[in-house]
Amino acid sequence: MLHGVQDLRIEERPIPVPAAGEVLVKVEATGVCGSDVHYYRHGRIDRYVVDAPMVLGHESAGSVVEVGADVDPGLVGRVVAIEPGIPDGTCAQCRAGRYNLCPAVRFHATPPIDGSLADYVVVPAAFAHPAPAGMRAERAAMAEPVSVGVAAARKAGIGVGARVLVIGAGPVGLFAAQVARAQGAEQVVVTDVNERRMQLARRLRFAAPADGEEFDVVLECSGHPDAFAAGLRAAAPAARVVLIGMGADEYRLPVGLVQGRELTLMGQFRYANTYPAALGLIADGRVDVDSCISHRFELADAEAALTIGQREPSANKVVVVNVSEGLDR
Amino acid sequence: MLHGVQDLRIEERPIPVPAAGEVLVKVEATGVCGSDVHYYRHGRIDRYVVDAPMVLGHESAGSVVEVGADVDPGLVGRVVAIEPGIPDGTCAQCRAGRYNLCPAVRFHATPPIDGSLADYVVVPAAFAHPAPAGMRAERAAMAEPVSVGVAAARKAGIGVGARVLVIGAGPVGLFAAQVARAQGAEQVVVTDVNERRMQLARRLRFAAPADGEEFDVVLECSGHPDAFAAGLRAAAPAARVVLIGMGADEYRLPVGLVQGRELTLMGQFRYANTYPAALGLIADGRVDVDSCISHRFELADAEAALTIGQREPSANKVVVVNVSEGLDR
Amino acid sequence: MLHGVQDLRIEERPIPVPAAGEVLVKVEATGVCGSDVHYYRHGRIDRYVVDAPMVLGHESAGSVVEVGADVDPGLVGRVVAIEPGIPDGTCAQCRAGRYNLCPAVRFHATPPIDGSLADYVVVPAAFAHPAPAGMRAERAAMAEPVSVGVAAARKAGIGVGARVLVIGAGPVGLFAAQVARAQGAEQVVVTDVNERRMQLARRLRFAAPADGEEFDVVLECSGHPDAFAAGLRAAAPAARVVLIGMGADEYRLPVGLVQGRELTLMGQFRYANTYPAALGLIADGRVDVDSCISHRFELADAEAALTIGQREPSANKVVVVNVSEGLDR
Amino acid sequence: MLHGVQDLRIEERPIPVPAAGEVLVKVEATGVCGSDVHYYRHGRIDRYVVDAPMVLGHESAGSVVEVGADVDPGLVGRVVAIEPGIPDGTCAQCRAGRYNLCPAVRFHATPPIDGSLADYVVVPAAFAHPAPAGMRAERAAMAEPVSVGVAAARKAGIGVGARVLVIGAGPVGLFAAQVARAQGAEQVVVTDVNERRMQLARRLRFAAPADGEEFDVVLECSGHPDAFAAGLRAAAPAARVVLIGMGADEYRLPVGLVQGRELTLMGQFRYANTYPAALGLIADGRVDVDSCISHRFELADAEAALTIGQREPSANKVVVVNVSEGLDR
Repeated sequence: MLHGVQDLRIEERPIPVPAAGEVLVKVEATGVCGSDVHYYRHGRIDRYVVDAPMVLGHESAGSVVEVGADVDPGLVGRVVAIEPGIPDGTCAQCRAGRYNLCPAVRFHATPPIDGSLADYVVVPAAFAHPAPAGMRAERAAMAEPVSVGVAAARKAGIGVGARVLVIGAGPVGLFAAQVARAQGAEQVVVTDVNERRMQLARRLRFAAPADGEEFDVVLECSGHPDAFAAGLRAAAPAARVVLIGMGADEYRLPVGLVQGRELTLMGQFRYANTYPAALGLIADGRVDVDSCISHRFELADAEAALTIGQREPSANKVVVVNVSEGLDR
Repeated sequence: MLHGVQDLRIEERPIPVPAAGEVLVKVEATGVCGSDVHYYRHGRIDRYVVDAPMVLGHESAGSVVEVGADVDPGLVGRVVAIEPGIPDGTCAQCRAGRYNLCPAVRFHATPPIDGSLADYVVVPAAFAHPAPAGMRAERAAMAEPVSVGVAAARKAGIGVGARVLVIGAGPVGLFAAQVARAQGAEQVVVTDVNERRMQLARRLRFAAPADGEEFDVVLECSGHPDAFAAGLRAAAPAARVVLIGMGADEYRLPVGLVQGRELTLMGQFRYANTYPAALGLIADGRVDVDSCISHRFELADAEAALTIGQREPSANKVVVVNVSEGLDR
Repeated sequence: MLHGVQDLRIEERPIPVPAAGEVLVKVEATGVCGSDVHYYRHGRIDRYVVDAPMVLGHESAGSVVEVGADVDPGLVGRVVAIEPGIPDGTCAQCRAGRYNLCPAVRFHATPPIDGSLADYVVVPAAFAHPAPAGMRAERAAMAEPVSVGVAAARKAGIGVGARVLVIGAGPVGLFAAQVARAQGAEQVVVTDVNERRMQLARRLRFAAPADGEEFDVVLECSGHPDAFAAGLRAAAPAARVVLIGMGADEYRLPVGLVQGRELTLMGQFRYANTYPAALGLIADGRVDVDSCISHRFELADAEAALTIGQREPSANKVVVVNVSEGLDR
Repeated sequence: MLHGVQDLRIEERPIPVPAAGEVLVKVEATGVCGSDVHYYRHGRIDRYVVDAPMVLGHESAGSVVEVGADVDPGLVGRVVAIEPGIPDGTCAQCRAGRYNLCPAVRFHATPPIDGSLADYVVVPAAFAHPAPAGMRAERAAMAEPVSVGVAAARKAGIGVGARVLVIGAGPVGLFAAQVARAQGAEQVVVTDVNERRMQLARRLRFAAPADGEEFDVVLECSGHPDAFAAGLRAAAPAARVVLIGMGADEYRLPVGLVQGRELTLMGQFRYANTYPAALGLIADGRVDVDSCISHRFELADAEAALTIGQREPSANKVVVVNVSEGLDR
């Protein structure tokens, strides 16, 4: 439970009971996202303020241990990846298939909604995505950040022949780069100012861009204004540029360049309808999540998991692993 | 002929002869575009410099008076709208249907290519679009700026139910607003700081936006950074914003807003495959071009046509009308 | 209540009570659809069998008289158009924005779901679409068949410049033709073998196609194999053909023609996300529903409304009007 | 030269000279297409009749040996894949980016246009696509049938997560299946009645579909009515079905199924803008063309290459290899 800035406490709470249409998941692994770290360090992100104790975490997977009414009991025992944003299912955005934009979405670890960095969590069955047979929870948990890449690849219309530039070699960038490659990109290059991250990128067979190369798609995963500017300059006529990275309040937009090349810039907010595809990519290794996981911690050491990124330049994706216990409500 | 800054001269030159696949058009009307005015006043636009005498004008229509080999002689006598950008037809952009992005395009009145503010001009038959029966040349000439609106409406995917904000009530904005309405927009509102232009907008039945209204499509036709910023704030989730207006070097891009609403921003550069649709819109009055034409001049007074915009706040679309003469080569 | 083939009875049942998220609507007008007639005459449509008494009707509008919990009480008194298919909101099709394909959809007057040809009906608030101010219920009820046209126009990508052929001048065809025109089609022609229907089409300013004309879009609303075949022959290269009309089990598909012109054929099943646009089109007369309503009956004469189509060649859209009474549960 | 039904002759003709914008290619390999076989056996395909001697072949690659004016001389010595359909570049279809539908296209080995099953051929430089460094001509020649798969994958919008059924395990089907996999399909299954072809499919790691499986995309490459019918039955809601295979005049179209699932059927005619992507797929083995080439013949044995398919059930892609000679005009 995050009680305030840098005030994280392990607390006991009753195991929740799944209502009709819901499943109870024994969480087994949870990735740490930059937003978790930000809430831990600053107690807020923009207008979202942690003003009551809140469970962090929204990149989780685990095993179904109980199902509510109207849910297939065959799910019990299945490893599932938990999609952490539960939309209302009835608003105009939901009905249009853009449930990530649902104004009433309840997203894990976005105040005041509790996250899933816990031993148990209850979610609607439709948002507990069965992992392919044999996939362990840690990999399934990565379906969340991989989903960002899936959404970006679809938005950008990546396909065979596409030349793709990925800016930023953190977990989101490296997953997005791998999804781009999996969706047929002819060439995917990655850039980052952090040499340790570029080493990892090269290990995943992503080269850095050469001078003067141009790209049909730019996936901006760094959030840095200078990187954005460089990305635009490298964009080919009719290129699509997806804005994924967060951090800066503002970018400078060179109007003439955007017009002269008829660029399309697209803001991305999370993802929708991506989990099955993300799980499939992880299952057969088209997205190698293992290589991107740099550190693992037990739930008892969650605080260390939230701070390692500040202490250790080699940190990339950090995962919290639950030590399994029986269900004893 | 523009010989230099504010040095426009009427000159006699031989009437050109249409080659195979070309037509000779007796120009009858030419709209004045902001770019013509800019070349006249400054002798350049960015990297395009008038360093040799150049004919201005690229919004022309007239009558076919002669055809080259391999062209249907039945075209003689037809009023045609002249599409002013002749692409090479073979490069990757052309083959992909984006001939407006052809790097070798020869665009009228973009140095060093002569424009069509002249008595005669030769163009490939494929770029001389027959006007619907009975349409006079002045209206046909407006197919050029109306084409900008057609391209924008297509880019933005305007259809029934769409709420559209048009920023800027100059000729491009007013034509784009009318195209948006013609393509089914539920609501089209127009904004401009120039009260005379807003009067014309109201005459065309476009209201100004109310506070807090939101829009599925924003057509930015002003080129002002503040207008762009206001347009983004008024954009609904998943809205498309088309950047049409020129003038500013840079806009400020509020990253979080673009991401949180998943906005799509699209730069527009001229148009492709729009002339027949534009002519159809003008023909049946769905786009009322007459109301937008504020001033007319004879070719002999072309210089006045280029300067009226500075002198007269009521100026909107200005047209140069040729006094007809016989073809005497 | 339809008890069996040609066995329609007026019955008294308790007025339903709106649950949380629902509204109770006093129905004021209901259009008769071909499917209502079919159930009345044959007791089934394919695998959908009326094996228990069922209320017919799914093109209704009326006034909200009561709201359940969590619904804006300001809705009481508003005229609403009732969208008749209530999807589950959670399945893969719903989440993808294609809620019309939800396998668990509960669609009014599709067995065993009761329809809305009744005095009162309860629906989720999200499916009770407020009509624009001043619109009476009869027009609002037409949002259902107009929605079919909206879905078709979107599917086909109709926009300015498009040449559209509509096959079938029944209510669906005439509404679809008007939506096509409203979304910018350059030309919309209508064809039907029924001369009375063609008279109405001409009154709505739709001509018949000329020999040899070709079309970018074909909206097949007749369900006749011969009409489909003729529609394909009239399709231009890259044309889109939407299959809307029902009746035939099979069409003959000329493979070479579909390939040689790269035609796209799209099956349409009802609609999704169309009601606000449909209501807007009706409100300002872009879709003239009044002219298409050929007959009106009181609810007590519902059986006559279901049979007039067989007896009267001039029948087009038939509407059942409720005689208003107070809410006396 | 095909002089008539089963009358193929080797003839000497002058080596053509490249005009401005053209290149002269020394042909080194040419795939045999079903259409070549059909012309050889029947002397016609539909309305295309071989009524004058014609060179067959349109799947060729070779080395540039001479360039015309206005062509980069650096091309000399490069291996190029020859795109065999030369459009006019100016008609409405060309300007819209659909140059495969150009009514004036000059397509190799479609009467009366000579093909490229010869030692030398002249083509416009824009249609001589440089192969990646080190690629030999035989592989480059396969860019033609691979292009069919690229066009299909784009048309169908294949991406990560897609389940794809490919009907027909001939060269077109096997190449299309590999392109589908390369563009991210979660699952690609292949079906064919020919067991030898299924063996090859399995060697390329394509399983056969299981009973009851459903697919988001169906690529019909067999041209058999029964296969088409089975493909439709296996199509998931909102699936796209691409009609590629030729042979049948007509399919039976089950209207209710196409509507109830909102299927989209798309005819495909050759391809446009696909060669660079196809070459990239071949270069890095994402499309394994070598495994699909079952037989090779010298140009002198071209007749055997045209008949092997009838004699040998294991025949798949057959290639004619030119024995290199110097350029001696």
